[in-house]
Amino acid sequence: MTSPGQVPVPGHDGDSAPFEYELLARRVVFGPGAGDRLGGEVDRIGASRVLVIANQRRAGELRDRLGRRCAGTFTDVAQHVPVETATAAREVARQLRADCLVACGGGSAIGLAKAVALDRSMPILALPTTYAGSEMTPIWGMTTGRRKQTGRDRGVAPAVVLYDPALTLSMPARLTASSGMNAVAHCVEGLYGPGANPVTGALATDGLRRLAAGLVGSVREPVDLEARGQALLGAHLAGSVLAVAGVAIHHQLCHVLGGALALDHADLNAVVLPHAVHFVAPAVPREMAGVEAALGAEPGDAAGALHDLARSLGAPASLAEIGMNAAELGPAAAAAVARVSQRPRPAGQAELRTLLEAAWTGERPTPIPDLAPSART
Amino acid sequence: MTSPGQVPVPGHDGDSAPFEYELLARRVVFGPGAGDRLGGEVDRIGASRVLVIANQRRAGELRDRLGRRCAGTFTDVAQHVPVETATAAREVARQLRADCLVACGGGSAIGLAKAVALDRSMPILALPTTYAGSEMTPIWGMTTGRRKQTGRDRGVAPAVVLYDPALTLSMPARLTASSGMNAVAHCVEGLYGPGANPVTGALATDGLRRLAAGLVGSVREPVDLEARGQALLGAHLAGSVLAVAGVAIHHQLCHVLGGALALDHADLNAVVLPHAVHFVAPAVPREMAGVEAALGAEPGDAAGALHDLARSLGAPASLAEIGMNAAELGPAAAAAVARVSQRPRPAGQAELRTLLEAAWTGERPTPIPDLAPSART
Repeated sequence: MTSPGQVPVPGHDGDSAPFEYELLARRVVFGPGAGDRLGGEVDRIGASRVLVIANQRRAGELRDRLGRRCAGTFTDVAQHVPVETATAAREVARQLRADCLVACGGGSAIGLAKAVALDRSMPILALPTTYAGSEMTPIWGMTTGRRKQTGRDRGVAPAVVLYDPALTLSMPARLTASSGMNAVAHCVEGLYGPGANPVTGALATDGLRRLAAGLVGSVREPVDLEARGQALLGAHLAGSVLAVAGVAIHHQLCHVLGGALALDHADLNAVVLPHAVHFVAPAVPREMAGVEAALGAEPGDAAGALHDLARSLGAPASLAEIGMNAAELGPAAAAAVARVSQRPRPAGQAELRTLLEAAWTGERPTPIPDLAPSART
Repeated sequence: MTSPGQVPVPGHDGDSAPFEYELLARRVVFGPGAGDRLGGEVDRIGASRVLVIANQRRAGELRDRLGRRCAGTFTDVAQHVPVETATAAREVARQLRADCLVACGGGSAIGLAKAVALDRSMPILALPTTYAGSEMTPIWGMTTGRRKQTGRDRGVAPAVVLYDPALTLSMPARLTASSGMNAVAHCVEGLYGPGANPVTGALATDGLRRLAAGLVGSVREPVDLEARGQALLGAHLAGSVLAVAGVAIHHQLCHVLGGALALDHADLNAVVLPHAVHFVAPAVPREMAGVEAALGAEPGDAAGALHDLARSLGAPASLAEIGMNAAELGPAAAAAVARVSQRPRPAGQAELRTLLEAAWTGERPTPIPDLAPSART
């Protein structure tokens, strides 16, 4: 036997750093056909008056599947959960005397169910159709005008999650790529987010590996159930990590840009991630070793490997490409400076401007030779 | 970037197999000084009348630390939780009107707290001092005479677990080795146990790596807080895996032998594991790749690497060494055949006899060349 433990173990601030975390009670069913289990799972939690939250087509399918358990549907789902939408859905839940919410969709449908459960406490069963990860977290969000309020409440974390890769087969390649890069970002930032710990580290690196393999296969052949399953499993791990580890500078920067310039959240994830990682890498060399190992990258080239992954998925490459004007770089850096965390690496206005300029041109980040393993021991 | 996903991903029956699992709500605090947080954690769950379950010395320390929150102590802790001990502890809890149990010790102290909580529902705060993993599971056990009854009840899973590596510094080298090999076994069997899934697989291989490194360091230098922390973190992961994935033939065989011949459970773990793994390996080649990667072993040599690890820890090597007579091998195989699972590989009396004979002599299992990676794709 060669010496165990010789591979660097990704974790948070070294392995002996203390940590604490909470797990929420939940049940996860994963695999082709998991969606067919919906009726039984509703019975299992003792609910009988389900409000289905999904788009029109999915809502119809789910109503048929639920039969008499379905009290009604709400199909007016919108991105970022506008407060008016939440109010309308809450009113429907009240009128129907719903005792359970079934949310099928991406972050918007599941986020709307959370907004309802925040008002009237009831269990949520989630059937994710994208890689956003909201189904695994107690994080809710609602938007008033252009201001998004977010919070954590363990009462809104779905009690049951049914992951059926068949539900993701119709996801367009463009959404597969950008939603997939959102999940990749959750894994990467899960290695150094405020709640990161060695347990989330193990899940994050495994999730990253599965996402990389599964997303490449899913974009190549959208109805490849094996590749879709691998990507969805990676997204499940990414959501589990997000729930505990939280987010850091990359995600916050995407929110600032998305809010100020009305750019798509998933597209921003694909564009900004390599450059945010290139910026934080010198502060978290151990964690970068985990990213490199998961992606099969050369030492010091975690950011470049993420750029290559986004390219191979056909995700947008630059802020310029998704519609940002060069003149907006300065104001964006100025707006961001007060709103992004200073961990794992302090970021002043000049650093953020440099980061955003790199994301605007979308060039491949250069490897950082100092991060080679010999420098990390 | 080289191709991601080229490393075999350990999991259960291939990666596209469906799975389901439940997580229990819990809070974990890990690190040197975690034990000092006990009072605050009791306050946090709103308890005020704590019954402490621990040996005499630990109970005194915890009483001092808890101050007026401590309603009383119970120090008559015994292996396998004799039903008489459970009855006595339950009576003390009743008399004290305890609203919370603090269990500090190994599987016996935590198991006794579970037996009390099974009778009178109340939260358990656990402070593990060994690597047994009971603190992470809803599994309880009680012994009447020589018959051990076990069960699962989510009400007895500790609500809060405080892992303080300082509490493990005084563990003797012999117990470090055998209790450590028990945790190693939970990780290994967690790769193919009845509830194994890709999520537990990721935790199991990470736990294995940490255990191997941490245990070797802890046996070499028992007060090395870093090595102790690494081993305890591995044990935390092993317990998390055990709670979901369950056990298989190795663990069941240890119970048969322990019950029939009164051999120590942890010692049996160290002795039997390499031979049980050698037996199941042909049925679970992917999972073995995970074990080999975690231990830095040659392809096909997972069982041998586990043998080497036990040897390097100074754990007992053979059933002969821990007091089993060769004449008992036949009867033991006959007794085991009805009581061990037939997964992941069917085991008749002849196979079990061969397995036990190998464990009796304690020789290093031979590598299985057919398990080399080229044979697994």
